[in-house]
Amino acid sequence: MNIVLLDPRQTESELWSISAKRQLEHLRAHVDVQAGDTLKVGVREGKRYLTEVLSVTEQQIQLKPIAEEAIPAKLPVTLIVAMPRPKVLRRLIMDSVTLGVEKIILLHSYRVDKSYWQTPFLQQLQHYIDLGLEQAGDTVAPKIELYKRFKPFVEDVLPLMIHSDCPAYVAHPYELQKMPAGIAHSCTIIIGPEGGFIPYEIELLKKNGCQAVSLGSRIIRTETVIPYVLGRLFSA
Amino acid sequence: MNIVLLDPRQTESELWSISAKRQLEHLRAHVDVQAGDTLKVGVREGKRYLTEVLSVTEQQIQLKPIAEEAIPAKLPVTLIVAMPRPKVLRRLIMDSVTLGVEKIILLHSYRVDKSYWQTPFLQQLQHYIDLGLEQAGDTVAPKIELYKRFKPFVEDVLPLMIHSDCPAYVAHPYELQKMPAGIAHSCTIIIGPEGGFIPYEIELLKKNGCQAVSLGSRIIRTETVIPYVLGRLFSA
Repeated sequence: MNIVLLDPRQTESELWSISAKRQLEHLRAHVDVQAGDTLKVGVREGKRYLTEVLSVTEQQIQLKPIAEEAIPAKLPVTLIVAMPRPKVLRRLIMDSVTLGVEKIILLHSYRVDKSYWQTPFLQQLQHYIDLGLEQAGDTVAPKIELYKRFKPFVEDVLPLMIHSDCPAYVAHPYELQKMPAGIAHSCTIIIGPEGGFIPYEIELLKKNGCQAVSLGSRIIRTETVIPYVLGRLFSA
Repeated sequence: MNIVLLDPRQTESELWSISAKRQLEHLRAHVDVQAGDTLKVGVREGKRYLTEVLSVTEQQIQLKPIAEEAIPAKLPVTLIVAMPRPKVLRRLIMDSVTLGVEKIILLHSYRVDKSYWQTPFLQQLQHYIDLGLEQAGDTVAPKIELYKRFKPFVEDVLPLMIHSDCPAYVAHPYELQKMPAGIAHSCTIIIGPEGGFIPYEIELLKKNGCQAVSLGSRIIRTETVIPYVLGRLFSA
């Protein structure tokens, strides 16, 4: 937690307050925050501030803003991921949010176990988004969309997202063309499930405007490949 | 598991055998391997083969090699990481091995909790190396070294690792100079603990030949920053 994310209504009066149990516990255990300390605070979907701590009690911490701070820029990328196992989903959301992905789409695919769509984590996405934002020092949540049918998404929705200045790259190990690096434009990245997309899916993605590109001969897990690809693409 | 890693003694006779419980269970549960199937196999510290499955029993799977396969190249990088929490250590080892890091050094630092050096995971590193190799399709384990004293390491060991064609980069958020991208030479990367290196440590690293470089204004967790940096550095 590198900033404390507050709801706008907690910052309406002159004195701001932190009252969420999770945040109070973290600040007590890891920061040992005291009156007089400064604390970085972000207002959900709003600005970020350096604040001064005025008082600390069991139930709340009172603050006042001192100075506005810059919010880190987002990466101009939409990440489309075949719905992963619940444990992987949690990390994937947190990491993508931390790294500044603008939009995340969770997609069904042939090798995705249908039970993954029943995970209670899908009801807790906001919590993992918050953790990612507080880690990064960001205040603006990415958009998250779910598509439980592969073909209609790829044929009807995906083509509208692809332009000459916003290409779509699907990571596929058996391609000769390499994933680009150091790009200066926006793009969409598509990451398959464990075991990969099936040939029919790769063909359908290509037919609908995606470029299949390789990341080399090592086979990398979903949760690892996402930061690896983002570091590669946006290194300019 | 994208290859099955075998000890050389399991491949000494004409017929090879898989007998480790972990591997047998994985192959039964996830691959449903049958006689006549092909299976990718790596010999520890040796070559990689496509094999044919000859028989499958509760206790073992018998194979014979059909053709030799290429082993993915390593990244020419030494990764020095402040000793992380046990849970993070496990992921960090697996991911670094999967991505092809040549050498991993775990280092003490002011903000590293001393109890981290007592974790039983340190006795199980070989297991997590194996999982990383089997994920990547690699057979060659990286070297892993532990240094429990920061200053003697930085003053006496680290300088011997730094050359004009092998620089050392320490990730530090407050630097103007950016982490390089798309390099074509080897290097050493140094990643601090949660909360970062203290100023004294950064100064000592710089005095001993390291370049402090920034990864931008987002603060990224250790386990996420490693694939992110490797993707950025080795994108050429």
